[in-house]
Amino acid sequence: MDLFIGIDLGGTNIAAGVVDAAGRLLFKESIKTGAERDAGAILEDVGAQAVRLIEAAGASRTDIRAIGIGSPGTPDNGRGVVIYSSNLPFRPETPIRGFLQARTGLPVHLENDAACAALAEARVGAAKGAANSVTLTLGTGIGCGIVAGGHIYHGFNNAAGEFGHSVLVPGGERCPCGRRGCFEQYASATALIRETRRAIARRPDSLLGRSVGPERRISARTAFDAMRAGDPVGTEVVGDFLHMLSEGVTNLINTLMPEYLLIGGGVSNEGETLLAPVRAFVEENAYYGEGVPHTRIERAVLGNDAGIIGAALMAADALAG
Amino acid sequence: MDLFIGIDLGGTNIAAGVVDAAGRLLFKESIKTGAERDAGAILEDVGAQAVRLIEAAGASRTDIRAIGIGSPGTPDNGRGVVIYSSNLPFRPETPIRGFLQARTGLPVHLENDAACAALAEARVGAAKGAANSVTLTLGTGIGCGIVAGGHIYHGFNNAAGEFGHSVLVPGGERCPCGRRGCFEQYASATALIRETRRAIARRPDSLLGRSVGPERRISARTAFDAMRAGDPVGTEVVGDFLHMLSEGVTNLINTLMPEYLLIGGGVSNEGETLLAPVRAFVEENAYYGEGVPHTRIERAVLGNDAGIIGAALMAADALAG
Repeated sequence: MDLFIGIDLGGTNIAAGVVDAAGRLLFKESIKTGAERDAGAILEDVGAQAVRLIEAAGASRTDIRAIGIGSPGTPDNGRGVVIYSSNLPFRPETPIRGFLQARTGLPVHLENDAACAALAEARVGAAKGAANSVTLTLGTGIGCGIVAGGHIYHGFNNAAGEFGHSVLVPGGERCPCGRRGCFEQYASATALIRETRRAIARRPDSLLGRSVGPERRISARTAFDAMRAGDPVGTEVVGDFLHMLSEGVTNLINTLMPEYLLIGGGVSNEGETLLAPVRAFVEENAYYGEGVPHTRIERAVLGNDAGIIGAALMAADALAG
Repeated sequence: MDLFIGIDLGGTNIAAGVVDAAGRLLFKESIKTGAERDAGAILEDVGAQAVRLIEAAGASRTDIRAIGIGSPGTPDNGRGVVIYSSNLPFRPETPIRGFLQARTGLPVHLENDAACAALAEARVGAAKGAANSVTLTLGTGIGCGIVAGGHIYHGFNNAAGEFGHSVLVPGGERCPCGRRGCFEQYASATALIRETRRAIARRPDSLLGRSVGPERRISARTAFDAMRAGDPVGTEVVGDFLHMLSEGVTNLINTLMPEYLLIGGGVSNEGETLLAPVRAFVEENAYYGEGVPHTRIERAVLGNDAGIIGAALMAADALAG
């Protein structure tokens, strides 16, 4: 049986697992990234993790065909490095592939983490069977992976998919990318938390304000909970968030017309509370002509495993040429 | 020699030509669309035009292998119809392919007109040799054709590429698509003319206002000319237009990272006056990591021939399977 190791390099955790050619995750483990350390120390841990996985999965090393790594930023498979990553200390000269190939004796392939998640959803997740799909992951930022013709769409420089950095409000909220008003500043979990905090500051007496207590623990769920309890302030925060999410989703659908537009990340745990209004907005506003099939908007189903599975499947693809 | 006929179905003119497999336009002619007539009358004219082209080009009919048609709206090659077209009287039941195949005895393939233009630029135009490119045509609206992996990217429903209907200003200018604030409402030739007219109404005494005379003939060039003459009002109109164009172009580049982003349509005749500020904005604002190659922003070079050439090349592709 051909097996692959998928590694999802995150700023907080490094999740890795053994995946078969059909995309089944057989075994996984997670370690802390320790992103404050230097790249060499992190790579040592990743190498040890890969070796441990091979053994712990009970597979002989010869069953593992390749290692796939999903990383934030822009991978360069030609050089075996990540040439740009904002959350990890990897530099264009950090020899990720060289190090891991030497440590494990296996071929190593690199890919953007959001692209890996999208590939996993397209092959074995919520968009299974569709040639064209897009997966948006609403988290600290907004990840966007594009699958076209069954494969990851990279752009010519492997940096495609930064739809989160589409300006939706010129002159709007400042974004770390340098622009103002990016989609990410309105539809990420971080943006929802920021707006929840602002609403509480304006209306501390609201049910939303009183719900967080003196320690003000605010999550992406806080405003949704207040809305469910009937609070107009929470309802407005959620409404604004869903409106901007819907505008962005409609823009992306008009441009790419994927068969599936999947939404993942912690906020997607809201399920239909989040999806139903987005669907209604898109049905009303997308540029579908009469008789043209419509994009399906669904929740991503693989959760945190998507990055591992997608990295492994990407490595399997690369091996198959 | 294998030859193909490309037909560019426009709301005003129907331009058609004979193209060889290398994308050379050997002969062309243009007729008035008469879009106010019924679909049958228009199809009769297109059929006669195709037959005329075959003869006028001096080729025997057996040299022509196929006919490609670029049409506004969403083509459905499976059924041989255009299922959605806002500028022509074709309906989902208008048998475009069936009629033309019967009239000419040749295979007929349908495609969106902006996609045809992009394919032509990608094969024999300004993006020649690049696997990934995007061509924006700034006209009455904004056409957007996406070429990925050397072929037209269609989306799952053949309706992809409506980037002009990406909202850039929520609650902004009304768009015929039903939304408000679409990119098309800020960066098309129509939008530039509208803003020129508004500026003249506000400041009839400006050089811009005085330049149009009592009959107020305004084109997409009017504000550019006033800017060149040193007028601050014209300069502001052009500046706002270029800013919104640049925001949209940056959004598209961040999402798709094409090797070339081409700008066509009448406004692109401004050349570097238009391109240089867009390039400068994109260099400053696009989400390029350190060491990541940058998209090249150039003027589309095939002009009105792009639609004919692209339709013919698309038919050649379809024939080759």
